[in-house]
Amino acid sequence: MYATINEANAAVIAEIRRARPRLVDVRPAGACIPVLAEGAVLMHAGPPIEWDAMTGPMKGAVLGACLFEGWSKTTEEAEVFAATNVRFVPCHDNSAVGPMGGITSANMPVLVVKNAEQGNVAYCNLNEGIGKVMRFGAFEGEVQTRLAWMRDVLAPVLSAALKTKSDGIDLTALMAQAITMGDEFHQRNIAASALLMKALAADVAAGDASREDKEAVLRFLERTDQFFLNVAMAHCKCVMDAGHAVGEGSIVTAMTRNGRDFGIRVAGLGDRWFTAPVNTPVGLFFTGYSQADANPDIGDSAITETFGIGGAAMIAAPGVTRFVGSGGFSDALEISEQMREIYVETNTTLQIPTWDFQGACLGLDVRRVVETGITPVINTGIAHRLPGVGQVGAGTVRPPLACFEQALEALAATRAAAA
Amino acid sequence: MYATINEANAAVIAEIRRARPRLVDVRPAGACIPVLAEGAVLMHAGPPIEWDAMTGPMKGAVLGACLFEGWSKTTEEAEVFAATNVRFVPCHDNSAVGPMGGITSANMPVLVVKNAEQGNVAYCNLNEGIGKVMRFGAFEGEVQTRLAWMRDVLAPVLSAALKTKSDGIDLTALMAQAITMGDEFHQRNIAASALLMKALAADVAAGDASREDKEAVLRFLERTDQFFLNVAMAHCKCVMDAGHAVGEGSIVTAMTRNGRDFGIRVAGLGDRWFTAPVNTPVGLFFTGYSQADANPDIGDSAITETFGIGGAAMIAAPGVTRFVGSGGFSDALEISEQMREIYVETNTTLQIPTWDFQGACLGLDVRRVVETGITPVINTGIAHRLPGVGQVGAGTVRPPLACFEQALEALAATRAAAA
Repeated sequence: MYATINEANAAVIAEIRRARPRLVDVRPAGACIPVLAEGAVLMHAGPPIEWDAMTGPMKGAVLGACLFEGWSKTTEEAEVFAATNVRFVPCHDNSAVGPMGGITSANMPVLVVKNAEQGNVAYCNLNEGIGKVMRFGAFEGEVQTRLAWMRDVLAPVLSAALKTKSDGIDLTALMAQAITMGDEFHQRNIAASALLMKALAADVAAGDASREDKEAVLRFLERTDQFFLNVAMAHCKCVMDAGHAVGEGSIVTAMTRNGRDFGIRVAGLGDRWFTAPVNTPVGLFFTGYSQADANPDIGDSAITETFGIGGAAMIAAPGVTRFVGSGGFSDALEISEQMREIYVETNTTLQIPTWDFQGACLGLDVRRVVETGITPVINTGIAHRLPGVGQVGAGTVRPPLACFEQALEALAATRAAAA
Repeated sequence: MYATINEANAAVIAEIRRARPRLVDVRPAGACIPVLAEGAVLMHAGPPIEWDAMTGPMKGAVLGACLFEGWSKTTEEAEVFAATNVRFVPCHDNSAVGPMGGITSANMPVLVVKNAEQGNVAYCNLNEGIGKVMRFGAFEGEVQTRLAWMRDVLAPVLSAALKTKSDGIDLTALMAQAITMGDEFHQRNIAASALLMKALAADVAAGDASREDKEAVLRFLERTDQFFLNVAMAHCKCVMDAGHAVGEGSIVTAMTRNGRDFGIRVAGLGDRWFTAPVNTPVGLFFTGYSQADANPDIGDSAITETFGIGGAAMIAAPGVTRFVGSGGFSDALEISEQMREIYVETNTTLQIPTWDFQGACLGLDVRRVVETGITPVINTGIAHRLPGVGQVGAGTVRPPLACFEQALEALAATRAAAA
């Protein structure tokens, strides 16, 4: 055991810095995540939650998964099946993350991100693009068609392209470049998505798929500017799990939301979730929608802020500041400067030119959050609160302080018990 | 005739703003630039210059073109042929631009950029990548192999991909996006190159070329982060020619260098060049090279600064500031703020997030340069002064003030004569 929390935190941060996640494959979720092979099981975003307590977008996505897996033929059947037959498990308990609803089933493909240093693996489903998409709660028609195409065409083509590389794609290097190009990796991934496509296009073209399929895959990547979000999430999960393995200290290693509860995990507190009711994001809404349509905070994507990008790296992406309704360049600077007070270190790999080449935030410390009362800023998409609608806007949200207060108390109790 | 120079300048700037260049094709230079079909003719960068007066990198590129066109079989033969048989004409006199030596021959492919509003067309040869490349004066072996591949594979594949689009690629929109991603379009084009590749990859994959050729083209684009430089140059030439057509005022519509002379053109002074001896760029050098190896300033690429990007947009690309040895974020800001004093307007299309969304500089005014004594900052590659070596570094350089002084005198004389 480390003598002080600071020493434990230094060890956690050293592991985070040492991690080198590589995107190595795209595979069916059921082939790499054991729990999904155990029958009617779905992974979801956030800390544990059951069907009855889920909000609209997660329920919509569950219905979509029941239809996609062939467990139900109609929406009505799916509602009954979801309520009675499906077992729900958090992505986070299975080395995985998923944006918004985070619903992932055995036959959905996942990105496979392997840590070349510590060896752990993280998974995330694939970004579906914008509009009517399952992660925001839409589930019928084009959603199903797209999910089937992603399973049958996109995934195998990307898998083949990745396998032509000796050891996949170095995400640390790619993200180091993309953060200099205005990505903060939560609401803005346009540079990283383009760089990933650049790294894959020649291999896709050289592959054995039909000309039509190769064109369709590249067209999808061309149009999906947030494709890298899910890659970034798997990267962050992979890195934070490597830090979490230290098993001590006050660094937050997961922040996530299920639409009802915000949950955090802390390196020194094992797999316990510290939860409190989520807030509702505030931001800008697409035409025809307003704040009244916004679902409460949802999704595993806050793993980006856990790592220190996303909202914490707002200064890297002043373009995003406007998109989420948070002002201009000076506002972006102010947010990142405030975040520096609750993260104990900077990320020497992710240098931000617009921050005079200062590194991104690293090491969110429960103690600092409670001492300062400053909670992390999370950039987020906003889902409609009803199932079947989809994304209605983008904005920012903060976690409830109570999660951090509970964790700090638990940490104190743990160390008192050990002393 | 406009009543005042300010009114004339407003008209020039309105035409620049109205221009909408689109990348529509890649064709053999001889098929679209008439002078190149008149026998042993080569286009070069800068104001007019003859063989004897050329510096090393331009001479090297001339030898390369003589070999490439089959006019000579050996370097020795090429030296004789260049000195006695070749007619040299400036790119700028033929709706074209070319980086560094700018040497362009009939069988080299050129980018075809058509202005959807005013209808004029501009051309630029294709970027060869880095290392031993013709534009920096290397001319044997791999240079010739690559030039032949660009002619036989790259150009037809890109041409076919561009033709699948109804009206090519909207460069105004692409550059508006890329400037928010840290490109200033002279020394940094990594975002624009990735976005261009993103726009072309699916069409390349769908094309009729062999799988090997399609892979090779996409691999080349993957590795050529400055591919868009030549596109940006053609864009700028197209836009500035549209402004030049107004035929009045004190806005600079071309700045270029041939290794000996720096030349400028002004909207109100027709096709006259106002020249003075070039300076030599100062910057950072690749391992093994130093300032003593630097060729004097050369290339048509200063058309980017003529338009108001490149060095004038240093604040958009703080990453470049380090690459050219000009400091950090605050230095980049200082350079762009200084440039605002000599450009009369801002470019509402090219908003720079790191400048609090201020537009790039627009409308370089001869009067302001002479009044303030501030000359434009030009970001530039640095060629070795001897033929056959290639690029040795990158840095910044300023034009001689004398060009602007001469132009201002000529402008005064013109208006006095008209009064």
